[in-house]
Amino acid sequence: MGLCGIGTRSHLSLELSRGILASMSGRLAPPSLLLALVVSSFCPATSRSGDETRNQLLTREKMMRVGGQLVLTWEEELANQRLRALKEAEMHEALSTGNILPSMHFFQAKSLIEKSEVFNILKKMPKGAALHVHDFSITSPDWLVKNATYRPHCYFCFTQRGTPQFRFAHPTTPTPKPAECPQWVLLEKFRKGLRNVSEFDNSLLRNLTLMTENPHVTYADQDAIWAKFETIFFVLGGLVSYAPVFRDYLSQGLEEFYQDNVLHLEIRASLHPVYELDGTIYSQEWLVRTYEEVAHNFAKTHPGFIGIKLIFSDHRTKNESLIKKSIQTAMDLRVKFPGIVAGFDLVGREDTGYTLYDYREALMIPASRGVHLPYFFHAGETDWEGTSVDRNLLDAVILNSTRIGHGFALSKHPAVLAEAWKKDIPIEVCPISNQQVLKLVSDLRNHPAAVMMAAGYPMVISSDDPAAFGARGLSYDFYEAFMGIGGMSADLRTLKQLAINSIRYSTLSETKKKSAMETWEERWQKFVAGLARGPR
Amino acid sequence: MGLCGIGTRSHLSLELSRGILASMSGRLAPPSLLLALVVSSFCPATSRSGDETRNQLLTREKMMRVGGQLVLTWEEELANQRLRALKEAEMHEALSTGNILPSMHFFQAKSLIEKSEVFNILKKMPKGAALHVHDFSITSPDWLVKNATYRPHCYFCFTQRGTPQFRFAHPTTPTPKPAECPQWVLLEKFRKGLRNVSEFDNSLLRNLTLMTENPHVTYADQDAIWAKFETIFFVLGGLVSYAPVFRDYLSQGLEEFYQDNVLHLEIRASLHPVYELDGTIYSQEWLVRTYEEVAHNFAKTHPGFIGIKLIFSDHRTKNESLIKKSIQTAMDLRVKFPGIVAGFDLVGREDTGYTLYDYREALMIPASRGVHLPYFFHAGETDWEGTSVDRNLLDAVILNSTRIGHGFALSKHPAVLAEAWKKDIPIEVCPISNQQVLKLVSDLRNHPAAVMMAAGYPMVISSDDPAAFGARGLSYDFYEAFMGIGGMSADLRTLKQLAINSIRYSTLSETKKKSAMETWEERWQKFVAGLARGPR
Repeated sequence: MGLCGIGTRSHLSLELSRGILASMSGRLAPPSLLLALVVSSFCPATSRSGDETRNQLLTREKMMRVGGQLVLTWEEELANQRLRALKEAEMHEALSTGNILPSMHFFQAKSLIEKSEVFNILKKMPKGAALHVHDFSITSPDWLVKNATYRPHCYFCFTQRGTPQFRFAHPTTPTPKPAECPQWVLLEKFRKGLRNVSEFDNSLLRNLTLMTENPHVTYADQDAIWAKFETIFFVLGGLVSYAPVFRDYLSQGLEEFYQDNVLHLEIRASLHPVYELDGTIYSQEWLVRTYEEVAHNFAKTHPGFIGIKLIFSDHRTKNESLIKKSIQTAMDLRVKFPGIVAGFDLVGREDTGYTLYDYREALMIPASRGVHLPYFFHAGETDWEGTSVDRNLLDAVILNSTRIGHGFALSKHPAVLAEAWKKDIPIEVCPISNQQVLKLVSDLRNHPAAVMMAAGYPMVISSDDPAAFGARGLSYDFYEAFMGIGGMSADLRTLKQLAINSIRYSTLSETKKKSAMETWEERWQKFVAGLARGPR
Repeated sequence: MGLCGIGTRSHLSLELSRGILASMSGRLAPPSLLLALVVSSFCPATSRSGDETRNQLLTREKMMRVGGQLVLTWEEELANQRLRALKEAEMHEALSTGNILPSMHFFQAKSLIEKSEVFNILKKMPKGAALHVHDFSITSPDWLVKNATYRPHCYFCFTQRGTPQFRFAHPTTPTPKPAECPQWVLLEKFRKGLRNVSEFDNSLLRNLTLMTENPHVTYADQDAIWAKFETIFFVLGGLVSYAPVFRDYLSQGLEEFYQDNVLHLEIRASLHPVYELDGTIYSQEWLVRTYEEVAHNFAKTHPGFIGIKLIFSDHRTKNESLIKKSIQTAMDLRVKFPGIVAGFDLVGREDTGYTLYDYREALMIPASRGVHLPYFFHAGETDWEGTSVDRNLLDAVILNSTRIGHGFALSKHPAVLAEAWKKDIPIEVCPISNQQVLKLVSDLRNHPAAVMMAAGYPMVISSDDPAAFGARGLSYDFYEAFMGIGGMSADLRTLKQLAINSIRYSTLSETKKKSAMETWEERWQKFVAGLARGPR
């Protein structure tokens, strides 16, 4: 028999019994999948009957998928039956109308998703950790408008391009410097003069989100959406960089993720200056300390909350000498705050920014000094195969990126993919973000993660910039991944594995991972029990 | 070194020197790719420098791609340089505007594609064979309107739904039976009474093509486009099933492909009844003989033309007992016409039709009788992963399909893919058809064939129903494949391999394949010489 023995039923049972261990320790999957490929390549099927071959191939595919090696408990099987029934009903409705929500633009699908029973289960599901979110897009813009802009000393102004700007300023020096914006107005006073305050507030809100009724018209191409996307950060900058708002924004963001059953966040943080009313500007160290404090306080009042990690991130429009400085900062911060600073990344639009190869000298600095600075590169967030930008994936893997942000183009690079898999580098899949919103793919069933999920490539689901996209927490992205990317095959195993992955591939210490897994498992069991019981 | 030695430069050179042989014989690729995956999975990269690893991975990916093992001649290298320069210029323009033609709907991109220099080179390129085209969509609808409907005795009528119907009828029994349509009018007479004949002709044309100015509005979903698609065949049925038109339609179709530098066609043929003016209805055998005669006569006047093969195709809406009869017919026809009848397929919309599994008893008949009836199944032309329809791919592979039509969903099925690769089953990729026109994917850069092309999976490019889509021959589909699916990496090697594949995976006998390759090579050399020389 030799190699051909692998892949027969007896071996499959063996793998099944090892499944749960394998899926936790996480080091067995890649070789076993590759072996499966080789086995199915070299073992003749002709000696078997058609039905036997059929069942074997179906079983093999089922086992190869993300979560395919998990063995469910009796209660999980019941829960899975109920989830599958709801999913199938929703899929059949979609099949009959020809319209499936993950093929619609998220802005148009959002209100329909909210009516889905599957979505409501996903909201309740303990999802583990959010490993790919950006500092200033974790909290709903409503909160910014309703809370931050209603605070005392909040000024606003329209730039010459008509974009609002905010600034908190001290009562003794009532207006911010005019150089930044022509005419600053105290919001408190301005609102008093308005007939329709909620209309005004809605207009502010529209400046803080990409949401729009006709996304295909409003955003004709990637340029249009990126322009608006960057404007949002420009608009909210003056609000969230005010120290008291900064603290509360973070706390509110953690609250929204916690409500969505996410217990740990790893935040790409730019560490831009934060100011006080008296003009004090805080250092990056102050920011890191404040992140740590806020998370610590949050954990005290939120049972089970694990914490946050920061991935210090600079912008890929900067020249290499500036990036060299940031690399130095990242190394310094990691020495000073080893418990919270996890590593370094480069952010901004990949297609128009410098490539990792352009920055190679800067990125080699830590290694050349014998320092380990973990990288978490955004890479392959592009449709432009074969360009220098597309090679970011290659360089992210060569530079041993701990995880890869998006990795949208990875399936087009089989050799890089194999190398990444060998190194156990997961991709952070953000369905709504880089797919529908940033226009990389219109129908999520065609998202390349579908291929990766089917092959069992290590991945986590995240939401990137939920606040800008009109989403919240992780549930909307889980819905898109579960119903769109995963097709009819994705089930409770898939969801469980994705949640486990989010803890396994987090940057928590081994001890903390263990306790995080325990917390998550306890919640998972409750969730499963509720799901298995069904509605009462 | 052991396994890790594979993939080093010395081995790559060895593979390069074997490349041309491998690409012709076609049996080396699958194991070598899988081996490459395993090698890159088990051989540590840490002992190599970053640049060395980078170059090795880039080389490995280059070699894995479709055509990656071909070694170009000096002249081909020159031609490739010119082609790459033109392609890069076009890509850079697309990058700067953010709009690449393969991301646009074909109906809107068509006139822009025609202005492309790359497209004009592709038109001149000897493309080998068209292995996936349907009987009544190979000839431009203009020809039907301008030629067929102007013939004597052509009647037309509008059905109660307003769809035109045509029928040739004998002068002594002037009108066709009214049962089929309320009021038949002789076209010759009707046109005489019209003020604006060309306007009328254009209205006929619109009934024979899916082309429309605003495809997104006209065809809101797959249902809408399939409905119109099927109506087209209903409309043209009365024209092309008239024996004299039937012959000329085929001849004209061969002419259009020949003009597009395609020398061989394998046609999915339904063998629907063909009639004469006097009411004679011809048998399927007459049809096969007529196909053979027309192709034979065409070859006499068209140097280098190889011929046609027929894949007898029934509709997947029929129940199994009817399919059993068709399987019998296919077996009979293959015995009677071994030189032209290549095998059997099932056509029509996959998502709503019976599955191969539903037909399993019928499809097992030939094997149960010890008869070899080659299958050429449409499979995986769906976005609905995990459904029973999606399993057609699995069953097509188990049933040893000689080729797979579309295989759009294959990359989502890694075990089935490995099995198909082992069996050397190529996919027939029809970019314009099942992708943009039938709405499976909107941006061809996200077409799953991009992943397959990068991995070197055996494939051919075809055009499915060019006449219905407003295309002609294969060049438009080659353009979409070359610029969209292939990304910046696809070059002259890719094109050469695709052309070679179309002969290798044809159903020509080994002797005929050899002579077809010789004819193609001669034309290829002329094409390359012209391309290398550049414009004069």
